[in-house]
Amino acid sequence: MNKNLESLIPLLNKNLKIIQRSDYFNFSIDSLLISEFINLTKNTKKILDIGTGNAVIPLFLSKRTSAKIYGVEIQEISYQLALRNISINNLNEQIYIIYDNIKNYLKYFTVGSFDIVLSNPPFFKVTENKELLNDLEQLSIARHEIELNLDELIEISSKLVKDRGYFYLVHRADRLSEILVTLQKYNFEAKKIKFCYTTKHKNAKIVLIEAIKNGKVGLTILPPLVINKDNGEYTDEVLKMFE
Amino acid sequence: MNKNLESLIPLLNKNLKIIQRSDYFNFSIDSLLISEFINLTKNTKKILDIGTGNAVIPLFLSKRTSAKIYGVEIQEISYQLALRNISINNLNEQIYIIYDNIKNYLKYFTVGSFDIVLSNPPFFKVTENKELLNDLEQLSIARHEIELNLDELIEISSKLVKDRGYFYLVHRADRLSEILVTLQKYNFEAKKIKFCYTTKHKNAKIVLIEAIKNGKVGLTILPPLVINKDNGEYTDEVLKMFE
Repeated sequence: MNKNLESLIPLLNKNLKIIQRSDYFNFSIDSLLISEFINLTKNTKKILDIGTGNAVIPLFLSKRTSAKIYGVEIQEISYQLALRNISINNLNEQIYIIYDNIKNYLKYFTVGSFDIVLSNPPFFKVTENKELLNDLEQLSIARHEIELNLDELIEISSKLVKDRGYFYLVHRADRLSEILVTLQKYNFEAKKIKFCYTTKHKNAKIVLIEAIKNGKVGLTILPPLVINKDNGEYTDEVLKMFE
Repeated sequence: MNKNLESLIPLLNKNLKIIQRSDYFNFSIDSLLISEFINLTKNTKKILDIGTGNAVIPLFLSKRTSAKIYGVEIQEISYQLALRNISINNLNEQIYIIYDNIKNYLKYFTVGSFDIVLSNPPFFKVTENKELLNDLEQLSIARHEIELNLDELIEISSKLVKDRGYFYLVHRADRLSEILVTLQKYNFEAKKIKFCYTTKHKNAKIVLIEAIKNGKVGLTILPPLVINKDNGEYTDEVLKMFE
């Protein structure tokens, strides 16, 4: 391993350490936003994170639940980082990582066995952004729908979550139509949506979605989340998430 | 006519007068929001407002465009008020009102003949809110999908607007999924969405949507519109719309 590319980030307030590599997809605000957005109850026993990267979302969730958390990651280096992150945080008993494409889910999981399935998937279609495809193959896979597209992600999530189970997604706000149409296609009912705006004067960049498998109709558009103040600092609402 | 139920509202800054009746659906902030949201260019020649009520949206739009504006209204009293509103504002050459159910559109209009079709339709499904159905039949028709449901509205709008023409809708934010799925069903591509929050701490109540018939994929979630400050006063952004 190339240790020069690595950094170890202590998240003091969360009592977590996270190893990242500068040439791989890094912990970003999206992971924190979806981790805080997820509704965990004492009935939450089994969670799946599709495309878990270095396992930052399972690490965050472990501070709020004792549920078993499974992560699936297709890139070997990210998978290795995930294992080390779990190990240095002593979470080997709670978080399990599988190194494979989630399309092979039947090798590992039973249909309808998860209380929650979530994903911070690649944000970009391959077709729409070919010229922007990152030179580094590992970044392209994390950012572009090379190994798994949105339709496949939602179809697989619908199979793996239990009836009335929850699906959480963080995605680019400009793909909202496609997301809602695809959720309906696979029997998910969108229940809560939160838009995240870089500043209150800008278009929404990120959307957080909660859907229920075979859920009743009834959607709430939650209050907007503004990430930065006009002076560039994080807003109080975001700072609170780091606590 | 029962003049006791009427009020004449001068909208000084807009140089408009509007007659309303307290027992009919009244001018509300929704009408102002959609009127301001609509993008008008010098190529906009023909506009249709489905369910125009007392014609408040055509009146607002007349201050921003010289396009011909057609309104369709199914309730006779509202239709009569619309005619009088047009007359007292001297807009008989620009605004035309038809007293009928829009389902009979072929009697009046050619398919694909409008640059813009818009609607501030009934917000409530009949099924979901039966116990809330208003005692006054005229209010029920304006607020509930008795004469026209969302699917029918979007289907008819898709027929009447030209290829690459615009459709604008103001609706309850909690019906977003259904709206986006139905837009796609009738070949509309949602292009711009703006959520309106009563205050910045509350769930979105209203959504404004711009869609293009056979438009390219590419959606923008515009900055949030907050209607009231914490002290209950209108925000500066809303006050600006009244100017």
